[in-house]
Amino acid sequence: MQDYKAPIRDAMFVTHELLDFQSHYARHGFGDVSEDLVSAIFNEAGKFAENSLAPINANGDQEGCQFENGEVTTPSGFKQAYHQYVEGGWPGLAHPEEFGGQALPYSLGTTLAEWFSAANHAWAMYPGLSQGCIKTIKAHGNDEQKKRFLPKLVEGSWTGTMCLTEAHCGSDLGMLKCRAEPAEDGSYRLTGSKIFISAGEHDMSDNIVHIVIARLPDAPAGTKGISLFVVPKYNVSADGDIEDRNAVQCGSIEHKMGIKGSATCVINFDGAKGYLIGEPNRGLACMFTFMNMARIGTGLEGLAASDAAYQGALRYAKDRLQFRALTGKKNPDGPADPIIVHPDVRRMLLTQKALAEGNRAMACYCMQLVDETLYGEDDVAKQTAEAKLALLTPIVKAFLTETAQEATSYGMQVYGGHGYISEWGMEQLARDTRICTMYEGTTGIQAIDLLARKVMGSKGELLSVFIEEIRHYCSSLRDNAQFSAWTNALASHLDEWQQITQDIGKAAATNPDELGAASVDYLMYSGYVTVGYFWLKMAVVAQQKLDEGSTERDFYEAKLHTARFYFDRMLTRTRSLVSSIQSGADNLMSMPEAMFRVE
Amino acid sequence: MQDYKAPIRDAMFVTHELLDFQSHYARHGFGDVSEDLVSAIFNEAGKFAENSLAPINANGDQEGCQFENGEVTTPSGFKQAYHQYVEGGWPGLAHPEEFGGQALPYSLGTTLAEWFSAANHAWAMYPGLSQGCIKTIKAHGNDEQKKRFLPKLVEGSWTGTMCLTEAHCGSDLGMLKCRAEPAEDGSYRLTGSKIFISAGEHDMSDNIVHIVIARLPDAPAGTKGISLFVVPKYNVSADGDIEDRNAVQCGSIEHKMGIKGSATCVINFDGAKGYLIGEPNRGLACMFTFMNMARIGTGLEGLAASDAAYQGALRYAKDRLQFRALTGKKNPDGPADPIIVHPDVRRMLLTQKALAEGNRAMACYCMQLVDETLYGEDDVAKQTAEAKLALLTPIVKAFLTETAQEATSYGMQVYGGHGYISEWGMEQLARDTRICTMYEGTTGIQAIDLLARKVMGSKGELLSVFIEEIRHYCSSLRDNAQFSAWTNALASHLDEWQQITQDIGKAAATNPDELGAASVDYLMYSGYVTVGYFWLKMAVVAQQKLDEGSTERDFYEAKLHTARFYFDRMLTRTRSLVSSIQSGADNLMSMPEAMFRVE
Repeated sequence: MQDYKAPIRDAMFVTHELLDFQSHYARHGFGDVSEDLVSAIFNEAGKFAENSLAPINANGDQEGCQFENGEVTTPSGFKQAYHQYVEGGWPGLAHPEEFGGQALPYSLGTTLAEWFSAANHAWAMYPGLSQGCIKTIKAHGNDEQKKRFLPKLVEGSWTGTMCLTEAHCGSDLGMLKCRAEPAEDGSYRLTGSKIFISAGEHDMSDNIVHIVIARLPDAPAGTKGISLFVVPKYNVSADGDIEDRNAVQCGSIEHKMGIKGSATCVINFDGAKGYLIGEPNRGLACMFTFMNMARIGTGLEGLAASDAAYQGALRYAKDRLQFRALTGKKNPDGPADPIIVHPDVRRMLLTQKALAEGNRAMACYCMQLVDETLYGEDDVAKQTAEAKLALLTPIVKAFLTETAQEATSYGMQVYGGHGYISEWGMEQLARDTRICTMYEGTTGIQAIDLLARKVMGSKGELLSVFIEEIRHYCSSLRDNAQFSAWTNALASHLDEWQQITQDIGKAAATNPDELGAASVDYLMYSGYVTVGYFWLKMAVVAQQKLDEGSTERDFYEAKLHTARFYFDRMLTRTRSLVSSIQSGADNLMSMPEAMFRVE
Repeated sequence: MQDYKAPIRDAMFVTHELLDFQSHYARHGFGDVSEDLVSAIFNEAGKFAENSLAPINANGDQEGCQFENGEVTTPSGFKQAYHQYVEGGWPGLAHPEEFGGQALPYSLGTTLAEWFSAANHAWAMYPGLSQGCIKTIKAHGNDEQKKRFLPKLVEGSWTGTMCLTEAHCGSDLGMLKCRAEPAEDGSYRLTGSKIFISAGEHDMSDNIVHIVIARLPDAPAGTKGISLFVVPKYNVSADGDIEDRNAVQCGSIEHKMGIKGSATCVINFDGAKGYLIGEPNRGLACMFTFMNMARIGTGLEGLAASDAAYQGALRYAKDRLQFRALTGKKNPDGPADPIIVHPDVRRMLLTQKALAEGNRAMACYCMQLVDETLYGEDDVAKQTAEAKLALLTPIVKAFLTETAQEATSYGMQVYGGHGYISEWGMEQLARDTRICTMYEGTTGIQAIDLLARKVMGSKGELLSVFIEEIRHYCSSLRDNAQFSAWTNALASHLDEWQQITQDIGKAAATNPDELGAASVDYLMYSGYVTVGYFWLKMAVVAQQKLDEGSTERDFYEAKLHTARFYFDRMLTRTRSLVSSIQSGADNLMSMPEAMFRVE
């Protein structure tokens, strides 16, 4: 995407007009984070994404990362852009001042992450992984560990990783083999091989700090025997100075479909020195504390790709002349009409737009919930936020990344054959974002997390809390005739959502496979209803602004048109999902495994 | 796909058990094409696909084509495989003996095309394009032209292309600029530049014969002023011998998302010598005569990718151990269960299987119709076949390629993160097949061809003919209780199909945009119903075979299980499509173009 434009106006709409971040910030000790300050930060971040990251995106894909003698060279310009990012103070935006950060809210830093990813998904993974590493050490490290590692990570002169996957275990971390032996000095020696380590080795920073899950010698089998360690590429003194090289080596990098500028590494630990973080054997629980944030981050990557694809498709649809409109010439002086006159091209553009803007609203709402869990002081409000976040996180992760596949595919489709060649950047978007439904927990994993762990695990309580919020909102619109069709459509989906949940629960009581059989359709159903809720809210706000005489009539009227499109043509996708859910598990499970074969 | 296996058993099932190709061949003058002969040819073709094409597929992607000084080098092994293909006599399989062919039926040669494409999509495009060129010359060339070009093309020592697209016109060929000036010797001199010419230049054959559309000096504007020419890379004597180089040059090749082993060329004609084929200004009409075959061919590429993705996903799903089944251990001696025990993995596998097998049945049915149009002697039967083919061709092209996107995406998804790395071949399948919804007429173009040109253009007649066939089949099952649920589901879809067609027609009478607004959803709806028809038929045949005591119980029972999956979870996708269709054009067209913008 050479011509990426950060969607600042829409981000301001969602954060400040739809979700009232200003009061939200004031309530959470960020009274100094004014709308003007947010706007100024958005503008700076937008410029960085547009002018520094977007221009090196295509060559990042073409050059990819190079691996030689254990070292990784990132594509031209990646290192320079990273240094610019560090100089701009971006790494520490939302981290505490005691480690050199700027102590701004989580949600503010995360909103920008969408644009960095939209401009250059591969590049954005390096700082993105560091954030995960920082959060882990901040949440679970002791004071000595924080002092040793955090200042340089927050400054950005070091970067971080998360080392989970091994060749034989991805989702099922209970099968983990990497082991950690205690050393006499209180540290540990880690031995094992990790795969798919993003940013595991590169040339951008002075040190790389790996968060590694491994087993202690006497650890119980399965997920209850996993501990968390911090293992730096270069050993670090207690004061945070770099010492000698640790026994951590990059064994190779993967050749992948996309995000080629992001080094996906095999990382070998050969008795490497590491430090235990948190309690022994409690590693997975520690990881789960920031799992919500990591998964929302992946959802944002999907959102980012959807928006970038919309931008690219829209530009082409207005420029490319091909055929006349079915209703007569719209560009009589030209040899043909721009293809945006064709209904099916508009269907694709509106799908992208409805997804990008609706998904952004859902994502920002979740960031607000994260803020509440991090900074809230009212225990009830905090618990409610945690409950909603637990429910919505797998939806955001999977729905935003699954719909990104459609949006980026339309990005290519609007271009016709031109979408398939590298020049326009549309095929790169599709390739880059394809990973998002797989890493950080596949869609299937998110779906079972939602349905089995969150919804059924809470006996429907987590779902009820969120449904009540939407129902309450629908009730508040009772007297608003303009929106009654959409409000009714949404309200009847709420009833249905609860009904299918009950039905699945009942069926699963005798056959647990019913959960897996319904799970992905159930997640997508939940996503369409949730985004419907945000489209209704956005439409109401837009109408208010128009009624108040806003001069930005096009912006707000476009919201109303897009909401209509969403309710007419996208929320209705629940019809097929419900049919599939209701058909039960038997049509999946009754065929014996031996009958699955190629012949 | 290093481990591709040609689906010979299933092809025999579809052609000989479902569609009774044996009687069909006997009725059309191919009485000597026995089931044994077909089986022998299938086996040979399968071996070629498995042993010669599949092994060079991955390196074809990695090496790609190289362009230097106007010449294209294909990836290692491509040339050798092509020579093997020629030595095997495959190019002339379905062409007349007078030009050196083997005069076997069109449908026989085309069934194999699926496997060549599944094993190596990029490679298969070279011979595939030649087929289009041969058919054009055969149908519209004069005797002199046939003698000059056909023997070497049929033999395979020359290859062919179709040169249609120019930079400013893809779908809208009326804007074509390439021109042809008459020369004194009765030939023409062509000048202009064509883009996206597959197999436009390469190192496999002694000559390349381009079919080119261009304008004569006094041609009317638009599509009514397009003529068809044959323009060889090397000039050819009347006897078919190669002479001097013609003024045809490859200007560059494209860098694309996939099919990297297929050279996509810019071809520049600089006063190149060419021969008019067919009547002046009737070029597009000539092209349309084999458009059905070309589009079915593209549909087959989609089918091929779906089947290859199924094969790859299935292998992994049986091998990869991750988690225990929700219903308890299935592999108690291993550290975890194979992931095929998980309902959502089965959902993906069954979706691929139902698409591959259902789509194969639809495609082979269309090949049978093509046979009828080519070899039939009964005028009524011929006209009926032409009517059905006109209706089904855009469906086959678009539905088989759109569903291939889902099937190949699941190919990756079943592998999790491993699906994203090149090693397993799944990501290449997804990239390679992505072109199929764009070239040879995008899905949008197919959809408007179906709804506006075929269905409305015939006042519903073409649709009625096909619906009557299905209705008749449903009636024949009236007393069959085992299949009543599926028969009823299908029958109610037929009523609905006609109803929505009428509704769209009525709405379009006052607003032509209604056609475009409904078109793609309508096409997909039509596809799901049509494949439902073939799944019902396949289930009935499978049950008959079981009732007859077949020893292949697993094969036939798997058909019944898969049919059930299709009716329960795939035909029901029509519910959302109908909602979207019924919502009309206004939700797409009412938003002014100026409101589409990025901000």
